[in-house]
Amino acid sequence: VVSKLRFSISMSVDGYVAGPDQSLQDPLGKRGEELHEWVFSLSSWQEAHGGEGGDEDPVDARFGDAWSTNTGAYIMGRNMFGPVRGTWESSEPWHGWWGEDPPYHTPVFVLTHHAREPLEMAGGTTFHFVTDGIEAALERARAAAGDRDVSIGGGASTVQQYLRAGLVDEMQLHVSSVLLGAGERLFDDLGGGPHGFECVELVSSARVTHYTYVRS
Amino acid sequence: VVSKLRFSISMSVDGYVAGPDQSLQDPLGKRGEELHEWVFSLSSWQEAHGGEGGDEDPVDARFGDAWSTNTGAYIMGRNMFGPVRGTWESSEPWHGWWGEDPPYHTPVFVLTHHAREPLEMAGGTTFHFVTDGIEAALERARAAAGDRDVSIGGGASTVQQYLRAGLVDEMQLHVSSVLLGAGERLFDDLGGGPHGFECVELVSSARVTHYTYVRS
Repeated sequence: VVSKLRFSISMSVDGYVAGPDQSLQDPLGKRGEELHEWVFSLSSWQEAHGGEGGDEDPVDARFGDAWSTNTGAYIMGRNMFGPVRGTWESSEPWHGWWGEDPPYHTPVFVLTHHAREPLEMAGGTTFHFVTDGIEAALERARAAAGDRDVSIGGGASTVQQYLRAGLVDEMQLHVSSVLLGAGERLFDDLGGGPHGFECVELVSSARVTHYTYVRS
Repeated sequence: VVSKLRFSISMSVDGYVAGPDQSLQDPLGKRGEELHEWVFSLSSWQEAHGGEGGDEDPVDARFGDAWSTNTGAYIMGRNMFGPVRGTWESSEPWHGWWGEDPPYHTPVFVLTHHAREPLEMAGGTTFHFVTDGIEAALERARAAAGDRDVSIGGGASTVQQYLRAGLVDEMQLHVSSVLLGAGERLFDDLGGGPHGFECVELVSSARVTHYTYVRS
């Protein structure tokens, strides 16, 4: 078993993985939630959120928890962790978008320029704040993950940094028919890349297409 | 029957509809042909080009001639017509990429800043050179198409002009798993759009996903 660095991300057909103008009201940017509607329709998501199940497609169900399966640690950018910019000092320190029990249940390494003590949440999630770059974050995440994989949670800028460094082993794109028109583009600032990926599976439901790539 | 303005275009998952550095050797830009490999595998294309048929998917076969079905006239940009820039004067005037019998078999309106006499080819294709803008080209194409549709052949810049003007009724995107990394992006310079499109079908083979949108 080899631990991989991978990501699984929902994208609009016009290339955005988040809408513009992230804020407290719009953690994923304006209209960003539309990228994830295929997940919200899954019975696994519905059950976890008190819904009634739905009209899920078995193809989509296969990919709904790809981001967390066999993941022993996460890496995310500061903007994915929260809307705070600059230092973390505050009378009410930001604890992430996800409430007391975030859905990670592993160590999560947050890339930031501003140091902060680790933040232990319920359910096994601890946020660690890494100020010395993507390689350092990856090293710590690999150590925490053991045999399991390290997943990049996002957003676009964090994924791009790891792609540019040639460190990503596997990527999954979930491309819905949404046209966002603005926001954070995944395939940008990659200097003509990413290079060296082979598509090993392309499969769709009527909602979304799942493209899986491995480093060849 | 209402005549529509529409387009059907192959795109990489990172958003490009042509590679970079178009030239005589690379009409579609570097690696641009990879976008169309799903078409080359179709038996209709194989038969037309002396091939042996292939491993085509019935889903792809449905979309292989979408660009030409019920099309009474085409509009294309000057770069899609050829690599010539500036005036058309030449000892060997450019006649398009497609040889004596281009695959259009209808009038084709080429957007250009440089006037030129119409160019009549074999098989019913006549290239008309339109110097007074996209609305004028559309008006002439509609008159030529009658009850049939007007198809925008490409490239990206021409499609964008019609999308910005809100004139497109239907669009089909054929998104393969290719990662080009550079080239001509379809969804660019659209001012936050395109707006007002509804996806009416998303269906894929193992090679390519076909997204169909209509103006809602």
